[in-house]
Amino acid sequence: MPIYKAPVEDTLFILNDVLGIERYRNLPGFADATADMLAAIVGEAARLSEEVLFPVNLSGDQEGCRRREDGSVTVPKGFKAAYDLYREGGWLGLAAPEEFGGQGLPYTLHTAVGEYMSSANMALMMYPGLTQGAIAAILAHGSDEQKRAYLPNLVAGTWTGTMNLTEPHCGTDLGLLRTKAVPNGDGSYRISGQKIFISAGEHDMSENIIHLVLARIEGAPEGVKGISLFIVPKFTLTEIGEPGDRNGVSCGAIEHKMGIHGNATCVMNYDEATGYLIGVENRGLNAMFVMMNEARLGVGMQGLSIAEIAYQNAVNYARERLQGRSLSGAKQPDKKADPIIVHPDIRRTLMTIRAFTEAGRAFTLWTALQSDIAHRSDSEAGRQAAEDLLGLMTPILKGVLTDKGFDHAVMAQQVFGGHGYIEEHGMSQYVRDARIAMIYEGANGIQALDLVGRKLAMNGGRAVMALFKEIGDFCEENRGDDRLSGYTKSLKKGLSDLQAATMWFMQNAMAKPDNAGAGSTDYMHLFGLVVLGYMWAKIAKTAEEKLAAGAPDNADYLRNKLITARFFMERIMPETALRKARIETGADSMMALDAAAF
Amino acid sequence: MPIYKAPVEDTLFILNDVLGIERYRNLPGFADATADMLAAIVGEAARLSEEVLFPVNLSGDQEGCRRREDGSVTVPKGFKAAYDLYREGGWLGLAAPEEFGGQGLPYTLHTAVGEYMSSANMALMMYPGLTQGAIAAILAHGSDEQKRAYLPNLVAGTWTGTMNLTEPHCGTDLGLLRTKAVPNGDGSYRISGQKIFISAGEHDMSENIIHLVLARIEGAPEGVKGISLFIVPKFTLTEIGEPGDRNGVSCGAIEHKMGIHGNATCVMNYDEATGYLIGVENRGLNAMFVMMNEARLGVGMQGLSIAEIAYQNAVNYARERLQGRSLSGAKQPDKKADPIIVHPDIRRTLMTIRAFTEAGRAFTLWTALQSDIAHRSDSEAGRQAAEDLLGLMTPILKGVLTDKGFDHAVMAQQVFGGHGYIEEHGMSQYVRDARIAMIYEGANGIQALDLVGRKLAMNGGRAVMALFKEIGDFCEENRGDDRLSGYTKSLKKGLSDLQAATMWFMQNAMAKPDNAGAGSTDYMHLFGLVVLGYMWAKIAKTAEEKLAAGAPDNADYLRNKLITARFFMERIMPETALRKARIETGADSMMALDAAAF
Repeated sequence: MPIYKAPVEDTLFILNDVLGIERYRNLPGFADATADMLAAIVGEAARLSEEVLFPVNLSGDQEGCRRREDGSVTVPKGFKAAYDLYREGGWLGLAAPEEFGGQGLPYTLHTAVGEYMSSANMALMMYPGLTQGAIAAILAHGSDEQKRAYLPNLVAGTWTGTMNLTEPHCGTDLGLLRTKAVPNGDGSYRISGQKIFISAGEHDMSENIIHLVLARIEGAPEGVKGISLFIVPKFTLTEIGEPGDRNGVSCGAIEHKMGIHGNATCVMNYDEATGYLIGVENRGLNAMFVMMNEARLGVGMQGLSIAEIAYQNAVNYARERLQGRSLSGAKQPDKKADPIIVHPDIRRTLMTIRAFTEAGRAFTLWTALQSDIAHRSDSEAGRQAAEDLLGLMTPILKGVLTDKGFDHAVMAQQVFGGHGYIEEHGMSQYVRDARIAMIYEGANGIQALDLVGRKLAMNGGRAVMALFKEIGDFCEENRGDDRLSGYTKSLKKGLSDLQAATMWFMQNAMAKPDNAGAGSTDYMHLFGLVVLGYMWAKIAKTAEEKLAAGAPDNADYLRNKLITARFFMERIMPETALRKARIETGADSMMALDAAAF
Repeated sequence: MPIYKAPVEDTLFILNDVLGIERYRNLPGFADATADMLAAIVGEAARLSEEVLFPVNLSGDQEGCRRREDGSVTVPKGFKAAYDLYREGGWLGLAAPEEFGGQGLPYTLHTAVGEYMSSANMALMMYPGLTQGAIAAILAHGSDEQKRAYLPNLVAGTWTGTMNLTEPHCGTDLGLLRTKAVPNGDGSYRISGQKIFISAGEHDMSENIIHLVLARIEGAPEGVKGISLFIVPKFTLTEIGEPGDRNGVSCGAIEHKMGIHGNATCVMNYDEATGYLIGVENRGLNAMFVMMNEARLGVGMQGLSIAEIAYQNAVNYARERLQGRSLSGAKQPDKKADPIIVHPDIRRTLMTIRAFTEAGRAFTLWTALQSDIAHRSDSEAGRQAAEDLLGLMTPILKGVLTDKGFDHAVMAQQVFGGHGYIEEHGMSQYVRDARIAMIYEGANGIQALDLVGRKLAMNGGRAVMALFKEIGDFCEENRGDDRLSGYTKSLKKGLSDLQAATMWFMQNAMAKPDNAGAGSTDYMHLFGLVVLGYMWAKIAKTAEEKLAAGAPDNADYLRNKLITARFFMERIMPETALRKARIETGADSMMALDAAAF
């Protein structure tokens, strides 16, 4: 049977000690987030995740969602009850504005607890996850009336939201989309068309579903400049704002997917459904990007979440499974065999995942903190710097944490041997669930292109230069410290590979754009290695300082951080040289083959 | 809808031109394998794979196998009819001795056509695949009587075989196994116990199933030295050798697996089943290893097979899916978008897979050829050299081709974006099917340990030194050739990393065995890179020579080989340095954490 225990100690260590969240007390919502309050909320989220969400995860995968002939959809057994407890706990509105019923607490905290919940039940958490996206878009682009009409129920979770972008012939290239919007004359529109891959598109857990739909207003320009965003409620609202008539939107089918079976991924048919323009006509893509950006952080976090639960189960199995003997002599001579955790190759697997999840957690929370600063700081310079960093980190966090999250779920599955291939142990589910995170919210190849093609050069490279300086300064400041020089030396080497690769793009990609595309995925991962390495260096510095300050209660925990940091620097960080070498070979051999020759 | 076309041109190029199979005419069975005959057989296998096996692959995955209450098992619709055509074509006995109804053709040829069949339908091909293992074990260790009794029907495929090793508490560590054998006094035994993960354990496609079962004879020594191998037929044979009474073996359950749903993976219960000792008492593990070694080559090939079909479908999709525009200007300006194959990141994906499958195919056939030489040559020196190489290559072929085969199936799936996650497109199946190959027949971590712990040092390192010399000589001989020096330079660098890593083990692993385990997986992949690089260098040399000899019909094909070889050397080969760096960090940071601290 799978297990899960939320890594509360680690979360609090990162928030309090590594990121020093109390230094941000001046930000709105942060004053309430005292160390005690953080511990209480994180602890409560851990309990909910372990005891409510997790127990229906495996069964939800096995049962899946069912669509009836009338188009209604039933979620797996236990999902609604679990969602109700989540909703009643106010978790959806944790970081939402108090004005609409939220608690206004830091987005960083919302992210911290979100990790646990997605570990415990990724498919279930996608229902409120999509709702978060809808809330963000309405907050940013909705009229006051729309905010009043939709936000309180979305924030409370009594209604849920969706994002409707993809059509059968267009995913990445939204300029091709065909769904039509015809004005009714009263300010509303009739929306017609078909959307596919709509997560949480139809289900029986909420009183209403608020679809955010990209469509083209009759006569609008072709391409991306003619796309508008609409609110299309499953039930249009009555005069007093309650769900009223059934709107012309329905679930035509549930997709048969590799994983996330507990989430209803729907084909949605819009047949003259009543929709309401949100934001400016023909500027729908901009409005949608608000949802997308936040969603990308959430998806990156899913990579971390699944790697974490897969790791925990692999550790558990490796401690219990007796098979073979240690190469350095029997460790449990009284038993017929040693637990497989004595074998270096199993250690390699577990250490590799651990070195990723612990730094990945710091990376995620550090990035979420930039979002809080960007949205809440009263210093314009502070907001700008945070926004720069957030924009730069978003594709890296999404692309790297989901690629690695999947890889690490696969590695954890391998620890189980044949038992990992059997559905009952849950490892297959983690692998199958993690796979989608590499694809949705912009496939990882698109993230890499966003990084190389947009984020790098934005504002003359301001964001990337600031980060290189920050990491360089960190190495410089600490290189005289014997306890830290091992870490900073590796980090500095990684940074220098990253800087060289960046320079290579500047010199070679302007004249020949294919050179940028050819190196984009390697660059994204190179960047991810350096950022994760930076997280490890910060974690190591914090641990060394706390150990030096006396014998803390958690001395073992801190010493284990140093071991894992060293493992990361020795085993993982050298990959930067390979990534750089690949980038510098350019596009020639990649593009030489005729398309027909493949 | 998925597609598949067997890579016939590539197979024949490798057999005839790269490996020069006609040079082995003196080996038994090879004289018949003229170029025309090879082309005819390979072409016929292609047709069977494309038209018979492949059409029931996706449906077989979706339907799966069903066990009825009486323990009988039904395979998916269409499987039996496809198997019948396979069987009637004599494919199972292609390389089996003529004495028992086989055709005695080269194992290399059997392997060549096996690739297609596993691409087309891996789950179905496992039924005869396990039968091959049973044939090999009975050939090597069975008495003449056993050979006469079982081989003709196994070779004809009217009966199938299985391998029964794993028990719930023991997989890798077979010394722990508990299944018991009690002598009946008449030379037969009563076998009792439970086996799990038994591929093709029970089904309705053959008249009898011949289980090869590891068990412990009452009173035998503990551990691996007390294990014997038994033949346990589903139906014991009548006096005239036909299936008679139902034996005390039955399928207790079918496992719910991540993939290979078309193969019945069974829990097999032995309840005083009648069994017959095969080979020597208490030497069952040796007998079983004959099956295992051949099976490992077959499993490595599955990695190649799945990467190939996944690649073909990704190419097909990348040519048809219109989305976005080329970075270097529109390629199909008359259409609304370009096909995604114009994008460098898609090219990177396709070239990476292609660089693997084409060299992987050469690697597989080259290794199979060693098996033929080892078993059929009349030169003792030739046999020994081939056996050395075969032993050394087996764990590398199994471990590397299945790890990479899975990775590349995942990469191919990514080309499809969201559509890759939907079962109807088949990409999910390839990923799920490929996953098992990393696990069964010895998980890849075990392959790496076999390589580092056994194969390297065997006979004073004779095998590895001979191969290093062969590759080094190849580089030396060709480095003066301007057309080849680019390839040999990269290969030489890879070889030098491999030699340095080998030396590091010699100096550091004797005193501290954990250093060997810590680097074993990286070493296996480092070795795999060099071998695949060697294959590319051989392919490039062949292509250059044929191009230089005039304008052959297949000049485009040959030039594409050179492009792909260059891509491999530029983009893939540099990974050797990373693998070496990891190995040289040793076991310290990996083993430092207390087991309880994970």
